[in-house]
Amino acid sequence: MDIYLQKGREVLNSQAFSRMMEAELDTLSPGKAEMSLNIKYDYKQSYGFVHGGVISYMADNCLTFAGATYLGNCVTSEFKINYLFPAIGERLIATASVISHTWRQAVCECRLSVERQGQRSLVAAAQGTIVKVENDVTASGVTESAR
Amino acid sequence: MDIYLQKGREVLNSQAFSRMMEAELDTLSPGKAEMSLNIKYDYKQSYGFVHGGVISYMADNCLTFAGATYLGNCVTSEFKINYLFPAIGERLIATASVISHTWRQAVCECRLSVERQGQRSLVAAAQGTIVKVENDVTASGVTESAR
Amino acid sequence: MDIYLQKGREVLNSQAFSRMMEAELDTLSPGKAEMSLNIKYDYKQSYGFVHGGVISYMADNCLTFAGATYLGNCVTSEFKINYLFPAIGERLIATASVISHTWRQAVCECRLSVERQGQRSLVAAAQGTIVKVENDVTASGVTESAR
Amino acid sequence: MDIYLQKGREVLNSQAFSRMMEAELDTLSPGKAEMSLNIKYDYKQSYGFVHGGVISYMADNCLTFAGATYLGNCVTSEFKINYLFPAIGERLIATASVISHTWRQAVCECRLSVERQGQRSLVAAAQGTIVKVENDVTASGVTESAR
Repeated sequence: MDIYLQKGREVLNSQAFSRMMEAELDTLSPGKAEMSLNIKYDYKQSYGFVHGGVISYMADNCLTFAGATYLGNCVTSEFKINYLFPAIGERLIATASVISHTWRQAVCECRLSVERQGQRSLVAAAQGTIVKVENDVTASGVTESAR
Repeated sequence: MDIYLQKGREVLNSQAFSRMMEAELDTLSPGKAEMSLNIKYDYKQSYGFVHGGVISYMADNCLTFAGATYLGNCVTSEFKINYLFPAIGERLIATASVISHTWRQAVCECRLSVERQGQRSLVAAAQGTIVKVENDVTASGVTESAR
Repeated sequence: MDIYLQKGREVLNSQAFSRMMEAELDTLSPGKAEMSLNIKYDYKQSYGFVHGGVISYMADNCLTFAGATYLGNCVTSEFKINYLFPAIGERLIATASVISHTWRQAVCECRLSVERQGQRSLVAAAQGTIVKVENDVTASGVTESAR
Repeated sequence: MDIYLQKGREVLNSQAFSRMMEAELDTLSPGKAEMSLNIKYDYKQSYGFVHGGVISYMADNCLTFAGATYLGNCVTSEFKINYLFPAIGERLIATASVISHTWRQAVCECRLSVERQGQRSLVAAAQGTIVKVENDVTASGVTESAR
């Protein structure tokens, strides 16, 4: 397994929420990331579609992994998401790529699809800014740079 | 308990993902919604802060509840979120209000705060569009109006 | 000249602001639009770069033309833009494409570049929603559908 | 005239595009800005409403002025705008305020209204990020910090 994917999976595994969501990092290479998760009953909203919060979680996370391939330690500064169609299927797939980056931020886009009976269809599109975290940042010693 | 809050809590309780997240709808009145959840270890990311995906889930949901007070059945069409500071605390609180609405959509804003040792501080700000769902929409009989 | 481009240029020419800005529609085909304008001194801000307002005007307009190829009469409902680098050059070029659409809205993306001494470089990226205008809408007889 | 407004008007006057648009800075105080412009025929689109590009220019600029009261030299990094109603009237008014800021960025919101026969009505809402420009930045000697 290549070094990007190995490191990325370590980071994903260090996120308690991502472990709870059982999200997987499928590929990671400079400027590109792909994640997915199995759609469980627990991830749905009132109409039986995948909850927007699950989709936005995947968008946020996948944008950050794409940016991290250039930035190293980083966090999402902001993003916007458009929901396109109700998400119904067995698996939710996010693919993100870096549109442009400098040494301290990356602007990335993400496309979200569902896989249903072997067919993929687009359900959402996102765009956002990932910023480098410069110093040692933990919940016990947080600095402004963690924004 | 007033009729808005009662109906709102029924809707929230009909969302499997919101039950899993143990989110609560605290107040609901025309054009305004307040939600909160206890921050558990499972909701954190690598640095020990609340994961952006949890914050964006709350933003998405709270925006929709605010819009629903004018629109009835509705879904989030799109939103953007700016993360302001690392979210550290015991409780995450979202407050949303309708900026402007017509009979078929509402543009809403949301502020997200954490409560830590009795102090509230702002951690994120969101703005988005909520659209009315006109017909009967379920995962087994979805129509385009569910977008 | 093909029918899309001919009709598109008529629409562009019917916009007083676009005439003032001397924006040009260079190509238009189903789901795709390209516009450009010559960068004049009047379009700059304090540092000598193209003013963000000029770039956002081009993004807004180009997103709408891309959406219009599927929707007919339409307006921009919302968009977000990330400025990537200072815009310096002789010409500003916007290219937009439809990410996904239904009969009443299109979610589109736009990339904005400057041409400087024959080299193109990316300066901004936008994503937004274009919505169909259903009825006859004019400033003297505006209906809600014009939103 | 207070020092904020005086300095702000100097900056506005140094923007060639703002001079062309005849935009005015009406008030400026820590965390708050108000701008306006007279709606001319040249600012309209096909339906006779104010062109979205004029509204987004005002949003972009007013967001930046609000942020500048805390940051000094700064540029817009990104923003999103929701158009709410067709803009018809004699004057376009933008009011922006800082939601939250650090020493190097400010997240701001802006509301845009038209004044028509003495009545103000909301036509758009925006939210965006303003970032400090750290070094001497001009079009002839641009550095990455100008992003």
